[in-house]
Amino acid sequence: MSFDYQSAFENALGAVHREGRYRVFADLERQCGRFPAATVHLEDGSTKEITVWCSNDYLGMGQDPRVLEAMHGALKHVGAGAGGTRNIAGTTHYHVLLEQELASLHQKEAALLFTSGYIGNEATLSTLARLLPGVVILSDELNHASMIQGIKGGRCEKLIWRHNDVAHLEELLAALPEDQPKIVAFESVYSMDGDIAPIGEIAAVAKKYGALTYLDEVHGVGLYGEQGGGVAERDGLLGEIDIVEGTLGKAIGVMGGYIAGDAVLVDAVRSFASSFIFTTALSPVLVAGALASVRALKEGQELRALHQKRAAQLKAALTERGLPVMESESHIVPLLVGDPVHCKGISDRLLHEYGVYVQPINYPTVPRGTERLRFSPTPLHTEEHIAHLVDALDELWAMCKLAREENTPLHLAAQ
Amino acid sequence: MSFDYQSAFENALGAVHREGRYRVFADLERQCGRFPAATVHLEDGSTKEITVWCSNDYLGMGQDPRVLEAMHGALKHVGAGAGGTRNIAGTTHYHVLLEQELASLHQKEAALLFTSGYIGNEATLSTLARLLPGVVILSDELNHASMIQGIKGGRCEKLIWRHNDVAHLEELLAALPEDQPKIVAFESVYSMDGDIAPIGEIAAVAKKYGALTYLDEVHGVGLYGEQGGGVAERDGLLGEIDIVEGTLGKAIGVMGGYIAGDAVLVDAVRSFASSFIFTTALSPVLVAGALASVRALKEGQELRALHQKRAAQLKAALTERGLPVMESESHIVPLLVGDPVHCKGISDRLLHEYGVYVQPINYPTVPRGTERLRFSPTPLHTEEHIAHLVDALDELWAMCKLAREENTPLHLAAQ
Ligand SMILES: Cc1ncc(COP(=O)(O)O)c(C=O)c1O
Ligand SMILES: Cc1ncc(COP(=O)(O)O)c(C=O)c1O
Repeated sequence: MSFDYQSAFENALGAVHREGRYRVFADLERQCGRFPAATVHLEDGSTKEITVWCSNDYLGMGQDPRVLEAMHGALKHVGAGAGGTRNIAGTTHYHVLLEQELASLHQKEAALLFTSGYIGNEATLSTLARLLPGVVILSDELNHASMIQGIKGGRCEKLIWRHNDVAHLEELLAALPEDQPKIVAFESVYSMDGDIAPIGEIAAVAKKYGALTYLDEVHGVGLYGEQGGGVAERDGLLGEIDIVEGTLGKAIGVMGGYIAGDAVLVDAVRSFASSFIFTTALSPVLVAGALASVRALKEGQELRALHQKRAAQLKAALTERGLPVMESESHIVPLLVGDPVHCKGISDRLLHEYGVYVQPINYPTVPRGTERLRFSPTPLHTEEHIAHLVDALDELWAMCKLAREENTPLHLAAQ
Repeated sequence: MSFDYQSAFENALGAVHREGRYRVFADLERQCGRFPAATVHLEDGSTKEITVWCSNDYLGMGQDPRVLEAMHGALKHVGAGAGGTRNIAGTTHYHVLLEQELASLHQKEAALLFTSGYIGNEATLSTLARLLPGVVILSDELNHASMIQGIKGGRCEKLIWRHNDVAHLEELLAALPEDQPKIVAFESVYSMDGDIAPIGEIAAVAKKYGALTYLDEVHGVGLYGEQGGGVAERDGLLGEIDIVEGTLGKAIGVMGGYIAGDAVLVDAVRSFASSFIFTTALSPVLVAGALASVRALKEGQELRALHQKRAAQLKAALTERGLPVMESESHIVPLLVGDPVHCKGISDRLLHEYGVYVQPINYPTVPRGTERLRFSPTPLHTEEHIAHLVDALDELWAMCKLAREENTPLHLAAQ
């Protein structure tokens, strides 16, 4: 008898359902000019007005007039798509200009665009592994799925260091032969916890042992640094980082990814990476929008300041009610639930009863037992939005009898 | 002494240079409304007007007013980007509608969008391999790099069958245990040679041995079939294909990729594929454009007919001059050069002396020794464009003393 494919797929999905982590995508209609407001299309066909609390369009640049104008302009000027791979008719002048702009943003000689940040990581790490025979990649244990896929694809030696643990990294590096090629791969802002890597210490150890440094600034670009170059720029550490990787789909507000680094390294990735070579180039419309956004964010200090302020306000407000905010040094505000079914249940009630849209974050995005709601306040969320959200959570936490922080602030404990 | 990274990259690039296959991207500015006309930015800073002869925007849908209008509309309505992964705030109503439209186009229960056709193949094949323990993927030897990457990523057994050789495929299938899960993966139109797979025979053999059929219609969608559903639609074979994979970046004229298939299979890929889950969703602007394009192409019979006519005219005109057109059953017109340096040289002279832009196609895109120029005529190329191109090639072939076809047509041999 031949194999029963249908049952195999059903079984795999059955497990996801049983664990309460089957994903149902919210069907959204953002309202350009009114972000974070949006309309959600519900399964019964009705619609509902909501406030988006989990977008990675961290600064609302996806509706910035300068970005939109650039995109309308490119659509009129060159049309919808690139029409080919970068090599075969798909490189437009916008691509050339954006690569120059991104190189300059990160103070590097060159930059290279990819169709996404995911592909930026996958293509670059797997290609570096192929070009550096015998390389070992030292990877932070919480690195993003796209880095993990790149490392796997490179079929090279891989060593995992404990999250942000520089001593452990050094221990691993010290045990390797001096002349073995090495890449230390990590992120600046870890997006599910909101903590920030000790970039300077990591780079110092890496350099001490002759390793290349590879930094994913996907959640830092546009948000940190005088020009929006990321955490490494903020900390004056761009000179210590060999390869910066970023996305155009989060703070930049559009879509796409890139790396920046030495010209010869970037040229090598350009010349050898399968997922760069054999795919249609980014639409010039996206590239034009990203170019306008990156330029606008060079002067975006006020936006960055307000973004940080809103994140601090939300953290403070949650803490005040004893809600279990996970420690975060960044703009990301994760609230621990610790159970996939509860996590989904609260998210559903927030949507239906309070008009608050925040997606439950379950395994495999985060480890089991650390299921959470992850809020991303933007400069466009007001203090009223924050108050409404915190009241809603407070009520739901009470209703569901969920754990509060042990260290409830004194003035609340006394109530 | 620590490893010398710089030299490793330089050496790798040196080999590419020495083989004459270092890629220099043409820096283009298409002119919306005037395609296939474009402006090229040359390295000396000057610009030149050219005719694009190698775009995969096969029908010029990248400048179709209906597509542009839909994209302007989406930009105004919802803004530039999706702002998140499909699961976390990134699914817009446009995504939902396009998935429905694509499922219907291929007469399947469901469809799923990816950021590119490349990722469509990579994500789907690697995920199917993981979900079907013990699976063997039987892959046509000329399958695209993205399928190869998907199969590698799946870490499953892989068997290569000779290109379009159904007898060889059957031989391999017959030797496998009956109850072993199997996937037969192939393309409809092979884009570098322009030949078309015997889909019916392949599917029949696959079904005989209980294999799933996986068909990449990247170069068929929009171009073949009553509705533009691809070669499988044209041949009435959609029912024999379990998974259709396509792109939004070629005939559709925009960017992105997708699969269509049974609901449970699509849901499984949706739920398990890393490169689908962990990446920002396609920009709603692209999705809106692709939706308009797919709908327009359902009624695009005239465009498809003119496309085929132009391809036939170009092939006939080249043959008449004894230029070595490679046999092609499709809209793709490859002209054999057989040497990377000549291939690049002719392409350069076409650009600079004749205003014709066609990129040289060298290894690794095609096997060494089969370097070629690959022309893609569109309905927007006129008979004058064809005459100009063929005259230019005729002159260059004479100047460079390149081989002509042995079977020069009689009326020419007699001249
Ligand atoms: C740390 C990290 N790197 C890379 C990516 C991928 O970027 P993109 O969404 O542009 O594919 C993401 C999220 O999507 C991410 O969180
Ligand atoms: C056969 C085939 N499959 C898949 C792809 C990838 O599609 P996309 O350009 O949308 O990534 C291509 C070309 O790029 C291709 O030629």
